[in-house]
Amino acid sequence: MTQTITAMIETHPTEIRYDKQLLEDCLAACVECAQACSSCAEACLSERDVDPLRKCVRANLDCVDVCTTTARVLTRHTGYVAPLTRLVLEACLEACRACADECSAHADMHKHCEVCAGACRRCAEACEKLLASFT
Amino acid sequence: MTQTITAMIETHPTEIRYDKQLLEDCLAACVECAQACSSCAEACLSERDVDPLRKCVRANLDCVDVCTTTARVLTRHTGYVAPLTRLVLEACLEACRACADECSAHADMHKHCEVCAGACRRCAEACEKLLASFT
Amino acid sequence: MTQTITAMIETHPTEIRYDKQLLEDCLAACVECAQACSSCAEACLSERDVDPLRKCVRANLDCVDVCTTTARVLTRHTGYVAPLTRLVLEACLEACRACADECSAHADMHKHCEVCAGACRRCAEACEKLLASFT
Amino acid sequence: MTQTITAMIETHPTEIRYDKQLLEDCLAACVECAQACSSCAEACLSERDVDPLRKCVRANLDCVDVCTTTARVLTRHTGYVAPLTRLVLEACLEACRACADECSAHADMHKHCEVCAGACRRCAEACEKLLASFT
Repeated sequence: MTQTITAMIETHPTEIRYDKQLLEDCLAACVECAQACSSCAEACLSERDVDPLRKCVRANLDCVDVCTTTARVLTRHTGYVAPLTRLVLEACLEACRACADECSAHADMHKHCEVCAGACRRCAEACEKLLASFT
Repeated sequence: MTQTITAMIETHPTEIRYDKQLLEDCLAACVECAQACSSCAEACLSERDVDPLRKCVRANLDCVDVCTTTARVLTRHTGYVAPLTRLVLEACLEACRACADECSAHADMHKHCEVCAGACRRCAEACEKLLASFT
Repeated sequence: MTQTITAMIETHPTEIRYDKQLLEDCLAACVECAQACSSCAEACLSERDVDPLRKCVRANLDCVDVCTTTARVLTRHTGYVAPLTRLVLEACLEACRACADECSAHADMHKHCEVCAGACRRCAEACEKLLASFT
Repeated sequence: MTQTITAMIETHPTEIRYDKQLLEDCLAACVECAQACSSCAEACLSERDVDPLRKCVRANLDCVDVCTTTARVLTRHTGYVAPLTRLVLEACLEACRACADECSAHADMHKHCEVCAGACRRCAEACEKLLASFT
């Protein structure tokens, strides 16, 4: 996966005005987080007691949609930082933090929430670093 | 479409802490704008001379993804304004404005861009009004 | 919404080898159904007793994603029927039927499921008619 | 990425009636292919001569949406094979084959199309194997 992301960025036909490593890390983190949250929403819906997990399902589903859109917008502006890119990354950072917090709250009871919280935290960090690299 | 959005909000089982009319308008505008931009990207790709329309295709595709995600996040927090809702609406406002500007630039040559610019402007206005209603 | 869909199709730069009315109806139905199912998933998650509604949430979320993708693929091949279009419409028909059945099963207890089942049935019918028009 | 997919499946609370390895491979392939196609669409739009690449952009965008939806539907039915799963996998197989063929046609001119064709072929193969495992 990471190899494919790197190869696609290396073969982009125009100059890339991003820190390439941070861009690749952020794309990989968004894609991983979207899939982890998709799985975690499903796992929560499959738990014996779904009642206390409603908020977690919502946070997961938000994260799936926002991370997926973030990866697409970032990819579409591989060549330069569009004003939209910044706003989308800020929304992604918030979605990942909210989901990491929610999942962490029951990580000791549900192992899938622990795994998912890790993916959310990695994605939040990757978004933050990419945002910090914009001048 | 508007009737269905209204009916779904009217039958929501918990209290809604939004201005319902503004919420409905914003949902309808996001959904309409996503579809208009999806069509406009395709129409641009079908024009005899696609070369000057690349930027428009990108703006359209951004708008499709951001408006779709905005409608989903807004819907998922029908009961209350989540911090994420605000950030997503701000990203949506930017995506719609950027696409409206880009489409307007060749609205006289391409009728589909004129129609699409209208949908983008309506969506930007609906996002702005909903954002302004948050206290 | 319907007006915008019609206007975008009317202004498409190349010939359209579809029955235009059926194409417009199907696009409008997919977009309406995606939004109704998105709302219904959220309403189900907000019900006092979410336990018996898990299957409905899953059917709703499937329908959101499949209808959204169907509208995009249909739009992208406005000019002609791609082999993919047929397969995507068949998947959409199944997603809408499954969700209509599931929502109907508790339509008497949950008004939002009744509204959503109606949108799903209209979308299934629109997909079926469009599929039947392909020769 | 693969580790996260595996960990999420291993921690799923209910029994999984799939061949787990084929499920994991297919999820990883869908997610990789969606991102590769997203990048390839952008790279095609950035080429000096975009005119002969319109069809490739469309095939790429179809693949992005269909692979993303396939991963979501597959994930949502981790516990069992829903009738929808089969139809979505068949649509995904077609989208990946069409995009692999289109990208291969100019793989010698555009290195990004070569990389993308590889991801599409891997995804088509993973969908085919998973479909073949259903009895």
